[in-house]
Amino acid sequence: MRPGARILLLMKKPFDKLRSRNDTAKKALALHKKLGGKIRIVPAAPVRNRADLSLVYTPGVAAVSMHVAKHPKDARIYTGKGRMVAVISDGSAVLGLGNIGPLGALPVMEGKCALFKTFAGVDAIPLVLDLSTTVKAGTQAEIDAIVETVIRVAPAFGGINLEDIAAPKCFDIERRVIEALDIPVMHDDQHGTAIVVLAGLINACKVVGKKLTSARVVILGAGAAGTATAKLLHFAGVKNIVVLDSKGIVNGARPEPHKRELAKFNTKGVQGGLKEALTGADVLLGVSGPNLVKADDIRLMATKAIIFAMANPVPEIHPLEAKKGGAYIIGTGRSDFPNQINNSLAFPGIFRGALDNKVTKITMDMKLKAAQAIAALVPKPTAQKIVPDMFDKRVAKAVAKVIR
Amino acid sequence: MRPGARILLLMKKPFDKLRSRNDTAKKALALHKKLGGKIRIVPAAPVRNRADLSLVYTPGVAAVSMHVAKHPKDARIYTGKGRMVAVISDGSAVLGLGNIGPLGALPVMEGKCALFKTFAGVDAIPLVLDLSTTVKAGTQAEIDAIVETVIRVAPAFGGINLEDIAAPKCFDIERRVIEALDIPVMHDDQHGTAIVVLAGLINACKVVGKKLTSARVVILGAGAAGTATAKLLHFAGVKNIVVLDSKGIVNGARPEPHKRELAKFNTKGVQGGLKEALTGADVLLGVSGPNLVKADDIRLMATKAIIFAMANPVPEIHPLEAKKGGAYIIGTGRSDFPNQINNSLAFPGIFRGALDNKVTKITMDMKLKAAQAIAALVPKPTAQKIVPDMFDKRVAKAVAKVIR
Repeated sequence: MRPGARILLLMKKPFDKLRSRNDTAKKALALHKKLGGKIRIVPAAPVRNRADLSLVYTPGVAAVSMHVAKHPKDARIYTGKGRMVAVISDGSAVLGLGNIGPLGALPVMEGKCALFKTFAGVDAIPLVLDLSTTVKAGTQAEIDAIVETVIRVAPAFGGINLEDIAAPKCFDIERRVIEALDIPVMHDDQHGTAIVVLAGLINACKVVGKKLTSARVVILGAGAAGTATAKLLHFAGVKNIVVLDSKGIVNGARPEPHKRELAKFNTKGVQGGLKEALTGADVLLGVSGPNLVKADDIRLMATKAIIFAMANPVPEIHPLEAKKGGAYIIGTGRSDFPNQINNSLAFPGIFRGALDNKVTKITMDMKLKAAQAIAALVPKPTAQKIVPDMFDKRVAKAVAKVIR
Repeated sequence: MRPGARILLLMKKPFDKLRSRNDTAKKALALHKKLGGKIRIVPAAPVRNRADLSLVYTPGVAAVSMHVAKHPKDARIYTGKGRMVAVISDGSAVLGLGNIGPLGALPVMEGKCALFKTFAGVDAIPLVLDLSTTVKAGTQAEIDAIVETVIRVAPAFGGINLEDIAAPKCFDIERRVIEALDIPVMHDDQHGTAIVVLAGLINACKVVGKKLTSARVVILGAGAAGTATAKLLHFAGVKNIVVLDSKGIVNGARPEPHKRELAKFNTKGVQGGLKEALTGADVLLGVSGPNLVKADDIRLMATKAIIFAMANPVPEIHPLEAKKGGAYIIGTGRSDFPNQINNSLAFPGIFRGALDNKVTKITMDMKLKAAQAIAALVPKPTAQKIVPDMFDKRVAKAVAKVIR
């Protein structure tokens, strides 16, 4: 099936409010056509006459260029390096649509750049990479090419947000780019998601009166988001994490190194599939695909079960179905249900803070603190409200504050 | 000597209005510090609430991504590809400062982006390339790396303005990127300069009553600008062009292929140095370095000599000195003398036209027509006014119209 065809098919199912969803698609297409791109570049100061020109361009700019060439650190003061973030994708894992390539990814990257400015005043530009003319898809050469390219375009930026790059290559790419550069680099599909999931879990556990560190957590999906979430929860002290991929509970015999690593978090050594994993579990985190979980699966879980079904646009289990199975707290990635677990709560503030505080690496400790900061904005969480609203202006500020 | 040191030294010479120049440098540094980068990224439409968000980002954006992935040509309609230009440099030949690297180049690229918007409404972003971590400077591998990188980042853009890349590598890089991409690519140091020089010459010849095609033209400088100017003048029908580099008149024995090509335009077979070249010449175009020409050299030229001394900030010969030598029309790259020959008259309109008219290559014919369009905006040229003012709003429109 073509990428996206499966989603289209699912979108026709009655449960998904067909009309409103098609309306959204139509409206989105119309808006994008009208705008012709979702971001604009504007001069920071008007260039009205020769006097202005002589300062922003020749001859005045020569003094600035010479100064910056001599004192590279001052690029953060005299150029946009102190405020610019690149949002970079190869289009290999776009939304729920899969590998649709750089041009298909571009509308998403532009959307992210719009959110960066809206939520945190960060100037972000979209860059989508076409590797196809120089290397073969799916090869090590392709991974090398992405790494090289990101490193080469980095000088103008104070941070790099990798986006919608497929697992497992995303792990290697992110690690190598982080090592090579002295500016913060974050693959948002991994860490943005992990941070917001942890924030939601901190408050959800408060609501149900369970201790997060001793909760039994099941993660359905061992891709970018699932892997980073497992690692951040582990870092936060969660002792029992069972991760599943399409073949069942991941174990030490998996061929993929990142999955073997995840198997170590399965401290009770649970084996089997979703039913075995869910039996007695406190938390189910879905970061996989649509409709993979039934109400009967939820019934296997412990009382006051917490379910984040975050596949987009069609979650792993519909909230009403999860409710039927006895779930106590339900979050999704969608805006039309309570508890939207969306990385927009994290990434704008992460990069705002990294730029403001001249951070060179985003550490696990910063991610943990960011999750705690987001959670703290809902001091009295309820089953219907475990995370702050995305448009709550305090969010990016609170996150930025702890990225130091 | 460090890059720029020579310029600094020259700036201390009394003829150069020391105070005002230092004032400009100081003011430019202060302005850049205040601004922290000369461009800003803003959303094309406000994202005020969840309804907006659902259109510019998930879930609505999925429909746009799928459409664009399926119909790549429509990226020009639904994304910024139809309006965005990348201004890309490796910082190997920045202004008169030489090879000061990507960070040193960044203020210039930002300035260009500000001018793109100001003069032609083009959304342009600065990209400066650091090749140093992956390849050795000055090698074929470095050239390959620049070519590859530009091709890889191209999908988001409707045009690419290469900038401040040293000769001779700029020729190979531009040619290869043009061949690889289906969007217009132009190395502005070459063609922007060539177009504006030709525009100025068309009107200067009118003023002095000479025919451009039969004029004897001397070009001092066989770098990016000199080479492209010679080629465009040749294309425009100028039959006699003598080009000089630091070793004298270039001839068929030069090791550099691009210089051997230029030697073919020397149809009278003039040999020797500047004095031999200038004897009886009608036009001197300086695209080299400061203070290389004396009043006595100008005295060797034909009557009503035309001098464009475009080295920046210190020209090949000071306008007053050229006047003393008998020059009739004098142009410089500077804003504080009449006849500023500046590529800002060309590049904004070139890319505006290329985007508007979905042009995939900038041809010689388009460059010629652009020069004619610029010249035509001064219907009654005088010795003091051969080109339109940079802030004349008609310029970019007139140029854009012929880029089709």
